[in-house]
Amino acid sequence: MSVSLEALPEFLRRSPYHRLLGLEMVRAGTDEVAVRMPFREDLLAGDAAAGQYVHGGAIASLIDCAGDFAVIAAVGYDVPTIDLRVDYLRPATGELTATARVRKAGRSVAVADVDVTDGAGRLVAIGRGVFKT
Amino acid sequence: MSVSLEALPEFLRRSPYHRLLGLEMVRAGTDEVAVRMPFREDLLAGDAAAGQYVHGGAIASLIDCAGDFAVIAAVGYDVPTIDLRVDYLRPATGELTATARVRKAGRSVAVADVDVTDGAGRLVAIGRGVFKT
Amino acid sequence: MSVSLEALPEFLRRSPYHRLLGLEMVRAGTDEVAVRMPFREDLLAGDAAAGQYVHGGAIASLIDCAGDFAVIAAVGYDVPTIDLRVDYLRPATGELTATARVRKAGRSVAVADVDVTDGAGRLVAIGRGVFKT
Amino acid sequence: MSVSLEALPEFLRRSPYHRLLGLEMVRAGTDEVAVRMPFREDLLAGDAAAGQYVHGGAIASLIDCAGDFAVIAAVGYDVPTIDLRVDYLRPATGELTATARVRKAGRSVAVADVDVTDGAGRLVAIGRGVFKT
Repeated sequence: MSVSLEALPEFLRRSPYHRLLGLEMVRAGTDEVAVRMPFREDLLAGDAAAGQYVHGGAIASLIDCAGDFAVIAAVGYDVPTIDLRVDYLRPATGELTATARVRKAGRSVAVADVDVTDGAGRLVAIGRGVFKT
Repeated sequence: MSVSLEALPEFLRRSPYHRLLGLEMVRAGTDEVAVRMPFREDLLAGDAAAGQYVHGGAIASLIDCAGDFAVIAAVGYDVPTIDLRVDYLRPATGELTATARVRKAGRSVAVADVDVTDGAGRLVAIGRGVFKT
Repeated sequence: MSVSLEALPEFLRRSPYHRLLGLEMVRAGTDEVAVRMPFREDLLAGDAAAGQYVHGGAIASLIDCAGDFAVIAAVGYDVPTIDLRVDYLRPATGELTATARVRKAGRSVAVADVDVTDGAGRLVAIGRGVFKT
Repeated sequence: MSVSLEALPEFLRRSPYHRLLGLEMVRAGTDEVAVRMPFREDLLAGDAAAGQYVHGGAIASLIDCAGDFAVIAAVGYDVPTIDLRVDYLRPATGELTATARVRKAGRSVAVADVDVTDGAGRLVAIGRGVFKT
């Protein structure tokens, strides 16, 4: 099945897990895509007493989604993740945007890099994924 | 704040994101912890027509949680994740259990390994995390 | 080209870089292989004044080699590395042995885990690699 | 011990392993450093009959060195590697240059990104390392 750039926002929403986290595509190009995750209380780690921040698993999910869709935008079809890596740079407490670009799109695998920034433009986490093409 | 082994299941549930995914601690020891993620339709990727499987982001979240709690069980206090890596070995479609054990618990960082298996005992994904101690 | 278990030690030595580092296969089976790196002054980082230990790049090389050969032992032919990850657990100062086992050997990729121990059996580093099969 | 930018090329050469591989610093700034690895027959994998390319372990070593020195340039003192990841994008057969920049330099850890290019400017591998600061 071929997926056009125009169809990507809807293609992203078809996954129930993306809807659970509230992920939305905010920009899609063959060179770069951006996916946004809202600030929501149920995406947090910790509790009110200890201090709360966006859970690392939610950020990893955002990175997986953005990297995956950067590759889908480049190759035109759905691709499974082979492996994923996330480096957490600072605690985050607001809406987050993941910007992903493809570093390689080969016949067997693709590699995408993802930067996650908060509303103030600060780099919160960086990720890298390998996808099967 | 010190966290005892007995308090770990409740400590896990205090994070709203863990409750969102339905994560539950099923076993806690200083050498190994196990965390379960239920099979739920809203944790899936894909759609009914294309075929569905547990989303890689949900599996990454499960791995982050299990690795984190293996280190908490070993050192006795909460620890933030420095980085996380996940290798996806096969698509998963049921309840998943992550078993985590600490490979190193040093003064500045700890490293934990996590195996994720499905209900049939098949290895679905493996993960490794570095945590700040 | 098919590579038998008996031929693996010689197959390892055919790579000039393996000979440069002095890597030698010490055990080869379809479930596990072990590769040894000698203690040599020119594999060290630092200088005599500041204190010296085996360079992380040499350890990464040992891990890549051992993981690669675990997959070769399992599938019977040479495989390129797609990606490699190394966690350094403690400084090392002697001969090192990498023990590698395959976690997955699929049609498109294989994943191998590698433990590196020193002469006293202490865990020095752990690695994980993905290889194209 | 404090290390100035001017002293970095010599500081790199003090490690015997860097000299073994022929690594040389070609540019050093607080925002970015570049390290070169020569093309040499003894850095290759494979044999003349099967085809040869620069060994992944040598490339991992180059990446570790470049990432490490990017952090040293930023913080002013030597730092050990906590973990290292390498993605291999295409086989390489000539001199390679690793360009590294710091993505985070915190109180406990720093993260550096490394791009490795060949003489034609093609991206050969990308790496990411976490270092203890």
